[in-house]
Amino acid sequence: MQIELISIGTELLGGKLNSDSSFIGEHLGKIGLELSRESTIGDEKKKMISLLRESLKRAEIVITTGGLGPTFDDLTREAVSEALRRRLIFRSAILKKMREHFQKRHLSMPEVDRKQAYIIEGATVVPNDVGTAPGMIIETKKDGKRKVLILLPGPPRELQPMFIKKVLPYLKRYSKGSLRTISFWVAGLPESSVAEKVEPIIEKYQKKGLPAGRQEEIEFAILVHLSIIEVKLKIRGKGERINEQVSLIKEEIRKALGENLFSEKDGELEKIVGNLLLKKKLKLGLAESCTGGLLGNLITNIPGSSHYFQGSIVAYSNNVKKKVLKVPKTYLRKYGAVSREVALAMAEGARKSTKADTGLSLTGITGPSGGTKEKPVGLLFVGLVYPKKRVKIVKEYHFVGKRQDIKQRAAISALDLLRRSL
Amino acid sequence: MQIELISIGTELLGGKLNSDSSFIGEHLGKIGLELSRESTIGDEKKKMISLLRESLKRAEIVITTGGLGPTFDDLTREAVSEALRRRLIFRSAILKKMREHFQKRHLSMPEVDRKQAYIIEGATVVPNDVGTAPGMIIETKKDGKRKVLILLPGPPRELQPMFIKKVLPYLKRYSKGSLRTISFWVAGLPESSVAEKVEPIIEKYQKKGLPAGRQEEIEFAILVHLSIIEVKLKIRGKGERINEQVSLIKEEIRKALGENLFSEKDGELEKIVGNLLLKKKLKLGLAESCTGGLLGNLITNIPGSSHYFQGSIVAYSNNVKKKVLKVPKTYLRKYGAVSREVALAMAEGARKSTKADTGLSLTGITGPSGGTKEKPVGLLFVGLVYPKKRVKIVKEYHFVGKRQDIKQRAAISALDLLRRSL
Repeated sequence: MQIELISIGTELLGGKLNSDSSFIGEHLGKIGLELSRESTIGDEKKKMISLLRESLKRAEIVITTGGLGPTFDDLTREAVSEALRRRLIFRSAILKKMREHFQKRHLSMPEVDRKQAYIIEGATVVPNDVGTAPGMIIETKKDGKRKVLILLPGPPRELQPMFIKKVLPYLKRYSKGSLRTISFWVAGLPESSVAEKVEPIIEKYQKKGLPAGRQEEIEFAILVHLSIIEVKLKIRGKGERINEQVSLIKEEIRKALGENLFSEKDGELEKIVGNLLLKKKLKLGLAESCTGGLLGNLITNIPGSSHYFQGSIVAYSNNVKKKVLKVPKTYLRKYGAVSREVALAMAEGARKSTKADTGLSLTGITGPSGGTKEKPVGLLFVGLVYPKKRVKIVKEYHFVGKRQDIKQRAAISALDLLRRSL
Repeated sequence: MQIELISIGTELLGGKLNSDSSFIGEHLGKIGLELSRESTIGDEKKKMISLLRESLKRAEIVITTGGLGPTFDDLTREAVSEALRRRLIFRSAILKKMREHFQKRHLSMPEVDRKQAYIIEGATVVPNDVGTAPGMIIETKKDGKRKVLILLPGPPRELQPMFIKKVLPYLKRYSKGSLRTISFWVAGLPESSVAEKVEPIIEKYQKKGLPAGRQEEIEFAILVHLSIIEVKLKIRGKGERINEQVSLIKEEIRKALGENLFSEKDGELEKIVGNLLLKKKLKLGLAESCTGGLLGNLITNIPGSSHYFQGSIVAYSNNVKKKVLKVPKTYLRKYGAVSREVALAMAEGARKSTKADTGLSLTGITGPSGGTKEKPVGLLFVGLVYPKKRVKIVKEYHFVGKRQDIKQRAAISALDLLRRSL
């Protein structure tokens, strides 16, 4: 089963990101399907038509995102109509629903929006619970073969719930259940070390038990999300024999990764740490210098974090370190703001000023300037104070990269130190 | 001039983002070139070969990213060799450079890395200053036409400097200097209002002065970066007449966007606000509740922010609001943590506790739970205290969206309020 994705829109001009392919690819993997290609083009009808025709030739299922909006450069409807030689048909029920959408918001519907009530002849309408443009599922034939074309809106807040709630259940019928993906989430190891540990295991099983002729196959990929590494296995094949093999592989990978493996379910380390804090009934307070609030931001991305997160003192200036965190002046003078001593004093200050029981601190040099020979850009100290067990830890790290990368690595490393200590 | 991009790698499995196309598209725009298509496929040699052939048929310039690494699934070299029917040639100078790269890091070079010393016959080598895999520029012919194939490494920290420093200067020769892009960055207006203001202006000039037959053309796109909107004009054509028209368009767009236009150079509002603070010699302190540190994080992404940013008190719990920010207990009881009164008290607390002269605060409800009928999810108060002018401002906002979207919109709105006040 070949599935292709076509993204239509402004990404080629330099939008900030284009993660349609990774979002859709990841979710297809969960039901045993995979994307074989993604193509992005701008809003030009002619090019859209030829790309649609190419893709429908190669793949059984083609998904498009974008170009369903109301403005003059939203041309997906028209391009599909021409590519499939099907008419666009006005549906008054859709127009009515759109008018209601605007009325609820005390707005009148702009006349251009009418365009969104036109549907490709024979399409099944996929309702849009968030915005106005409905999606469409079109079953068709090309060169005597059955093909499916699925049209989805571009904005992620409309696309993502529509895809998960309505398109995935539809696509399940095309999955033979013979493709599985398994993820292992790792922190505290560079990509190359993860590869060194995992590769020999996979290769052993690839050679050993799974001859290619039997349609059983293991592939793997190592995906890097800055300092978090995801080992992703793709396993093709069903039956008891392969299930046994998979359990053995999983066991060996777990052993090889040891403590660095933090989840097999969820790549968000901040969620894993949050659950640990909740379980142990601990309250966390932060003192952030170089990360400027990034770690607090990560932690509070998780709904319900107010149950274990008290707050963060972002002590960018030494004034705040002294005044709020009560870091002794002499420490700052003698050891400097980026030092083991100050990191520990900050952690203790975080614990006290936020009325938490666990204090975690970060102080470092993110660059591009401000580094010295003794204290280069990328140096970080993380302090952790955890009084019930009378634990005090400071750890030194060295990172390379751009300012924002260093901040991200610093935040993840502090979270990971906390995870290992809990 | 058609340029296509081929991304090779793991994005289709669900990597977190795939911004090669937007990075390369944006930078090509700066030298008057544009991407016409981007395609992503996995590490399968056969598919890579057919995609390379297709793209070289359509486009004069084809750029690939990824697949130049040392492991068994890095197959770009082999695929290009077969697609162009050119041999791979071992270059000992590259091997030597790679060995030096590892020696500098006190590591020995893994033998698999040797593979990266093989170059497509006739290619110009593009050195990699950050990693080991060099890029290549290959001039070739297809159906009697001159074509250029450029192979680049996948990791953004290798790709991005190589593209800017080495590939862009090479590509300049293909630019006729007749395509320009102009950006207007807007905050405080939704996409639809920006479109309503800008569309009629563009349409007027499209009809008026620039007949298509003369190869002069104006196109525009509206790019949404959550609460920041970019209006991007693409202008084709040279000469005095078109330059005059462009100045007139720019003037009209500026007038139409008014105060909402915050930059024509830079989309980072945090940089614009930082420059304003620096110019006015002001020190900023924050009190963040619902954003959890996000605003401090944004501000400290800018190098040199320590010159105007003192710190942020992330007061997620009421304890921190009382203890550090000195928000009166009675306010919290009487008005609730999400209220005008508490927002103002937080702003004053931020100013005092961080020893700043300007205090900015955010308190709101990010959801998914925690909303009530009177105070629904998405409600936000921003407080600003700016004592030299004796200014005290509170502003109420209502947002929709997911937790992280609401946080982002809240942070940008607070920054924008500060910008307008400075």
